[in-house]
Amino acid sequence: MEELARDTDHSLWRYLPLLPVFNVPENHSLRVGWTPLVALPGIATDFDLGGFFIKDDTRNPSGSLKDRATEVAIQHASQLGADILVAASTGNAAASLAALTAFYGRQAVILAPSSAPAAKLTQILQHGAILCPIEGSYDDAFDLAQMVVEANGWYSRSTGINPVLTEGKKTVALEIAEQLDWRVPDWIFIPVGDGCIIGGAYKGFSDLRELGWIECLPKLVAVQAEGAAAIVDAFELGKEIEPVQAATIADSIGVGKPRDGLKALRAVGNTGGFGIKVSDEEILQAQHHLATKTGIFCEPAAAAAFAGFIRCAREGRLAAGDTVVVVATGSGLKDIPAARRLLSVPEPVPPDLSAFNASYQKQIVQERS
Amino acid sequence: MEELARDTDHSLWRYLPLLPVFNVPENHSLRVGWTPLVALPGIATDFDLGGFFIKDDTRNPSGSLKDRATEVAIQHASQLGADILVAASTGNAAASLAALTAFYGRQAVILAPSSAPAAKLTQILQHGAILCPIEGSYDDAFDLAQMVVEANGWYSRSTGINPVLTEGKKTVALEIAEQLDWRVPDWIFIPVGDGCIIGGAYKGFSDLRELGWIECLPKLVAVQAEGAAAIVDAFELGKEIEPVQAATIADSIGVGKPRDGLKALRAVGNTGGFGIKVSDEEILQAQHHLATKTGIFCEPAAAAAFAGFIRCAREGRLAAGDTVVVVATGSGLKDIPAARRLLSVPEPVPPDLSAFNASYQKQIVQERS
Repeated sequence: MEELARDTDHSLWRYLPLLPVFNVPENHSLRVGWTPLVALPGIATDFDLGGFFIKDDTRNPSGSLKDRATEVAIQHASQLGADILVAASTGNAAASLAALTAFYGRQAVILAPSSAPAAKLTQILQHGAILCPIEGSYDDAFDLAQMVVEANGWYSRSTGINPVLTEGKKTVALEIAEQLDWRVPDWIFIPVGDGCIIGGAYKGFSDLRELGWIECLPKLVAVQAEGAAAIVDAFELGKEIEPVQAATIADSIGVGKPRDGLKALRAVGNTGGFGIKVSDEEILQAQHHLATKTGIFCEPAAAAAFAGFIRCAREGRLAAGDTVVVVATGSGLKDIPAARRLLSVPEPVPPDLSAFNASYQKQIVQERS
Repeated sequence: MEELARDTDHSLWRYLPLLPVFNVPENHSLRVGWTPLVALPGIATDFDLGGFFIKDDTRNPSGSLKDRATEVAIQHASQLGADILVAASTGNAAASLAALTAFYGRQAVILAPSSAPAAKLTQILQHGAILCPIEGSYDDAFDLAQMVVEANGWYSRSTGINPVLTEGKKTVALEIAEQLDWRVPDWIFIPVGDGCIIGGAYKGFSDLRELGWIECLPKLVAVQAEGAAAIVDAFELGKEIEPVQAATIADSIGVGKPRDGLKALRAVGNTGGFGIKVSDEEILQAQHHLATKTGIFCEPAAAAAFAGFIRCAREGRLAAGDTVVVVATGSGLKDIPAARRLLSVPEPVPPDLSAFNASYQKQIVQERS
């Protein structure tokens, strides 16, 4: 721990001894991880908490937490001598793989349903990844990606298939613990789609407990959208996960057939956490609430975690004085149309002072007094 | 310098003694500055350079370098007891002011032409800034903002008016120097609209020379779009700056009447640099080139600086072995429509292995061999 405190590597590679690869990439100056843990004492006060923090993973190179998994996976692939990496994805994982393979000089092959949003395809193509649009669903693309990997001996960056991704994602937990000076928070709220991020967080805190660096685990709360809640439903009913038809504005967690569901259930169950579902309306309101109170503009999936926190706080499920961390998994800039739904642009005014004063001055002064 | 090397504050506040404010904000955990200086030895080799780096300021909280100026300005406003901050802007400066005032609990008032792109207005409104759309141009909004500031005693965050902004922006230069271990690069390429960023960079390196921490200044190159090149034209003709009608895809530098033009001219002239103009076509190609080779997806204005570098390198204006830094001032996620112009999505294929192999397998294997 003392050694770590002196480490000037401000990326996830400060945790190399806990990662399943031999070496740190020689040049990793693009810097994945070691994102800010943003302290928000105002929100702590609003909800009678001992502390409230956002882990701002929007600040990774491609704008999402997925970069943690990709960064470690690329190094793992290099160890194996593989320089073609394949992923089925329509979103953050694909953008992350495209961006980081560009930096490391590897080739990314992305299989995505042809119906994927143009904005996400833009990021993939900008980074020079080979994009193969599939006539079919995400599940079709996922299955084909596995066939392609097996037929060619390429490297799979697919959630639920490759355990190295969990190891990469666990670094978010290591950082939260270190940034809180090894005091474990009471609660961590995590948005859940496939379940890989919450599984990674559980793995990270478990590693730290085995090392004896922390004594207990934080309670992990899995937040899902009402329209894609296969994992939360299974947890609440105590049954196996049953696939659903996913429908939510939070596309990054719009997963009907979770690929890492068992890990997610274990993460929640073994830490004394629970699952919670939020509506699209709550998600959009939480996105705006968070942006207004914190300066962090996150995508709907990330806002879902904050919406889950608000719901729990209002329902009295948290105790006074508790410490809470919400993980902001992706940037709001990735989905501007969603972010515009609740907003309206005011009527224009002519460019003179009296017109401005008539429309705005009183409102501004009142708001501040 | 030794003290600085031990400083664990990884934000621009590590440079407090060089900034025009008394104190570091108590909670600045949103973390502005100390962005990665990304080493790209492949590009150095391609262009026969001693070193090539991107200063990745897309990684600031609101996705642009403007956060540096806003962060210091908000602290300055607090010192003065002002809690309403006003800016005329349609883009990054407005988004930055909206985001950071949200974090610090201040009120932002943004005056913008009503024709501003919806995506930029989204970011402003998400953060709860008061947006006043103006029936008129950016220049109209700028002038009205000044009237509003003077009439109400509010704080101005307008480029060219408030010298504190230059002080905030100079931290990009301080970081580049420190991250290169106080070895000054030969060239720094900076996109120029109003001229405040390049003026700030000049101020930063000048401060370091006065401190005796560096011996010489890097040559600063002002890169403008062909359709908005008032500063470069003035520099080349040795005349005063004459306003132009701005027209370029790089909206963040689409400035016809530069507000910090004199500072920009001085920055270029006093360092032995020069000005260069690039076409919109070159900008879009440079954006894709950069994303493909580096994993950094920047907005067109930032890509303009890289386009300027490529043009200079090809024209033989740089010497073999030189060290070059390009400043990536803003994120590509802020303008997806621009980033899509050169890209085309391939035709979809059915979800089976033989269809994939027929369309892609040979291409992928060939590209790698």
